[in-house]
Amino acid sequence: MDPLPQPPYYAVIFTSQRTPGDQGYGDMADRMVALAAGQPGYLGVESARGDDGLGITVSYWRGPEDIAAWRRHAEHKVARDTGRSDWYAHYTLRVAKVERAYAWAREDGNQDPRP
Amino acid sequence: MDPLPQPPYYAVIFTSQRTPGDQGYGDMADRMVALAAGQPGYLGVESARGDDGLGITVSYWRGPEDIAAWRRHAEHKVARDTGRSDWYAHYTLRVAKVERAYAWAREDGNQDPRP
Repeated sequence: MDPLPQPPYYAVIFTSQRTPGDQGYGDMADRMVALAAGQPGYLGVESARGDDGLGITVSYWRGPEDIAAWRRHAEHKVARDTGRSDWYAHYTLRVAKVERAYAWAREDGNQDPRP
Repeated sequence: MDPLPQPPYYAVIFTSQRTPGDQGYGDMADRMVALAAGQPGYLGVESARGDDGLGITVSYWRGPEDIAAWRRHAEHKVARDTGRSDWYAHYTLRVAKVERAYAWAREDGNQDPRP
């Protein structure tokens, strides 16, 4: 993820438990990331999912009105419906205002040891 | 993670890139989770790390003063120092105020398909 602007900005914390099997999830997840990146106020996204199927995706936005607009996006709505019917056992979504941010990186040039 | 109280509460979003190898990381991570759980204002934690070594841990707290107190905890300070010297290539920490939360769960009793 590219560096974000200085706070304040907003974070959408999406914690989800996948159902077994792909069922088209990977393609749709890639499509949603690309689609979100083109929305007004989008700042970035980072995502991790472990072998137990628990995943956390955090997307960053300029403000709550941008999050609301993305929520209303027609293709995003379809993905949410399919998420409920096929891909997720449960999920939680939290909208939070980022007040402070601090970044640290190793200085020995070994910043990306797993290419 | 047990259900959280209604917002507002705080989230610490910790995004990190691991260095290769364990180097005592797993034990210390378990210890930090257990230690954090005993701190005033601690509400919960959730964590995911993918095969690429990128991890996201979100801990939840009653308020910023609780986060500041945990930051000052002596054993936590030692873990942070070791994190910088041994475990992480880079990380970002964000403190955010959770304003809204929404949870959804499948109703067919298949809520935890990957025991």
